[in-house]
Amino acid sequence: MADELNLVDGLIHDMGDISHMLPGAEGCDLFTAIAEVKPFVEARIERALTHTSSQRLSGAMMHLINGGGKRMRATLPWLVAKAVGDTHSGLLDVGAAIETIHNFTLVHDDIMDDDDIRRGLPAVHIAYDLPTAINAGDAMLAIAFEAMVVADGIDCNDLPFLVKRIGRMVRRVSEGQQLDIEFASRDTEVTEDEYIEMIGGKTAVMFLTCGEIGAYLSGADEETVQCMHDWGLALGLCFQLMDDLLDIQSSTEQLGKPAGSDIAQGKRTLMVIHALKQDDSPAKQVLLGVLGKEDASAEEVSAGIDALQQLGSIEYGRARAEEYHAQAHQLLDRIPPTPALIALRELTDLQLKRLN
Amino acid sequence: MADELNLVDGLIHDMGDISHMLPGAEGCDLFTAIAEVKPFVEARIERALTHTSSQRLSGAMMHLINGGGKRMRATLPWLVAKAVGDTHSGLLDVGAAIETIHNFTLVHDDIMDDDDIRRGLPAVHIAYDLPTAINAGDAMLAIAFEAMVVADGIDCNDLPFLVKRIGRMVRRVSEGQQLDIEFASRDTEVTEDEYIEMIGGKTAVMFLTCGEIGAYLSGADEETVQCMHDWGLALGLCFQLMDDLLDIQSSTEQLGKPAGSDIAQGKRTLMVIHALKQDDSPAKQVLLGVLGKEDASAEEVSAGIDALQQLGSIEYGRARAEEYHAQAHQLLDRIPPTPALIALRELTDLQLKRLN
Repeated sequence: MADELNLVDGLIHDMGDISHMLPGAEGCDLFTAIAEVKPFVEARIERALTHTSSQRLSGAMMHLINGGGKRMRATLPWLVAKAVGDTHSGLLDVGAAIETIHNFTLVHDDIMDDDDIRRGLPAVHIAYDLPTAINAGDAMLAIAFEAMVVADGIDCNDLPFLVKRIGRMVRRVSEGQQLDIEFASRDTEVTEDEYIEMIGGKTAVMFLTCGEIGAYLSGADEETVQCMHDWGLALGLCFQLMDDLLDIQSSTEQLGKPAGSDIAQGKRTLMVIHALKQDDSPAKQVLLGVLGKEDASAEEVSAGIDALQQLGSIEYGRARAEEYHAQAHQLLDRIPPTPALIALRELTDLQLKRLN
Repeated sequence: MADELNLVDGLIHDMGDISHMLPGAEGCDLFTAIAEVKPFVEARIERALTHTSSQRLSGAMMHLINGGGKRMRATLPWLVAKAVGDTHSGLLDVGAAIETIHNFTLVHDDIMDDDDIRRGLPAVHIAYDLPTAINAGDAMLAIAFEAMVVADGIDCNDLPFLVKRIGRMVRRVSEGQQLDIEFASRDTEVTEDEYIEMIGGKTAVMFLTCGEIGAYLSGADEETVQCMHDWGLALGLCFQLMDDLLDIQSSTEQLGKPAGSDIAQGKRTLMVIHALKQDDSPAKQVLLGVLGKEDASAEEVSAGIDALQQLGSIEYGRARAEEYHAQAHQLLDRIPPTPALIALRELTDLQLKRLN
């Protein structure tokens, strides 16, 4: 499924100006639903990020966008609205804003985490330079707000809700990112609750914002808006737990960045927290030897991953991801089963399938 | 006057929660007017930036705010509104948002320009670290939007105007910053028009946004909003030209950062552009020898400044600043002369007096 989604990458340059059209409403499976919506959101993103006086700034802003991506966050407000209420062009405008902000966070995160590779391409601060990458990220955040307000599809009465939720989202991403930085150098143990709070900000808040805004703009009632907020949270937590698993269970080629880099960077993933809570053992010592060793060799990282396996921590991480997956489905059980709900079910299932 | 303004620094911690009060309306001179408004805006800024789950993030966000500053941008929407229409608490909310954004740009600019000192204090990326400084800046921008929307004083109908103008402002600051970076390493000459475009974005857009938003929220008509937009632009251009002069005519102690650092960084100020346009001469050779020489000694920088003096470039820069100063006053001539206009006249004059 992940590969299928990637097939629709690259459409962005082929669509021309379709900003005044709306997606069709034919397919209800996830692949068809995303493929329908994606080009409309991408056209909006491209229009906004290329409308600047600086070509170099525009190039830096479009660098990761052009590098691909499944556009999960971009299409999610529309998919949610389709499942629980009415769709209209404002959902595409909000999707474009959130996807632009997602990509801005990636540009800055790669600097903060000192990651040189993203989606198989040089990170923006490598392809351009550090000042340009910082500046491009800043401009992307500003443009996301500016473009959303200028868009025809957003009713002025909805703006307080949207600006507040999207402002909160970016703040919480920063708070999560800050916790992530602090955990890696902390002497004392990080608890599971702290980890969940961290990824709740760093990752899940974007999904929950897509969920609640999609439902809100569709005209759904308050209870449904809250339900889709909670579904987005469960989905996002599941996504990040599986992302942590992917980092250690995929090849460097599959990831488009060095496998196991979380371990070398000393990241306190749920798996590492689980392992460090255990009594001393040879496996734990191996893990401690490589955790946070930034110049660790591929063999050392591989031994660290084996240690996590022996300690049952990989299994534990997977089990926790499955819990959030089940929780997300239970939340969808509360929504009347429209055909469009199928895409949200499939998106929920997709998180667990990313390793297959 | 600049020193007098600094006297009211530090009030931020003494005011408690005054967010539901409004400034008095006694004084019409600039000092009294700013002193009246400043604590109310500062209380809003502090409340917004300390409302976060991460103490370290909050500390980094408040670092420059606590370092002082005249709060020109913070108080300007109120001062403009008082001169051309009605004042209300929304002007303080917008002032807080714009001042927060101004400080966010300083945090990121210091990284981009590799400046270690700001307002006599270590820059945020020095006092904390690079990832925290990037992250704190991002959070400040998000919080500026979030806090402005949450505020009681902003009418929902005004939000489209405000979000669009403030989004555009941040985008144009990034565009200006990008031009500034590119000019320093460009082989061909930078024209005066390009320089004005650059500082129009990097600096003046904040003043023009304060001007137009202040007038707009005061209930002024379209012509007045445009007039205060244009006044802010002229004021901002004058401010930046004088800032360039300050960099070479003040001591390191007065500046709170190394004097002449623009020359060592190869910045294409209007003075440098004026000098480089001239025929070859010994003075021009001295300037070329130090321009962009990052490890230049204080003596070399001083010789470069003398060369600018000999080439008449300092005088030229000052004359251009005076042109914008006159333009700003001409724009204020169009506004009915209320007592509150005095503060805007004095603020216009203050720009030229910063060297005295």
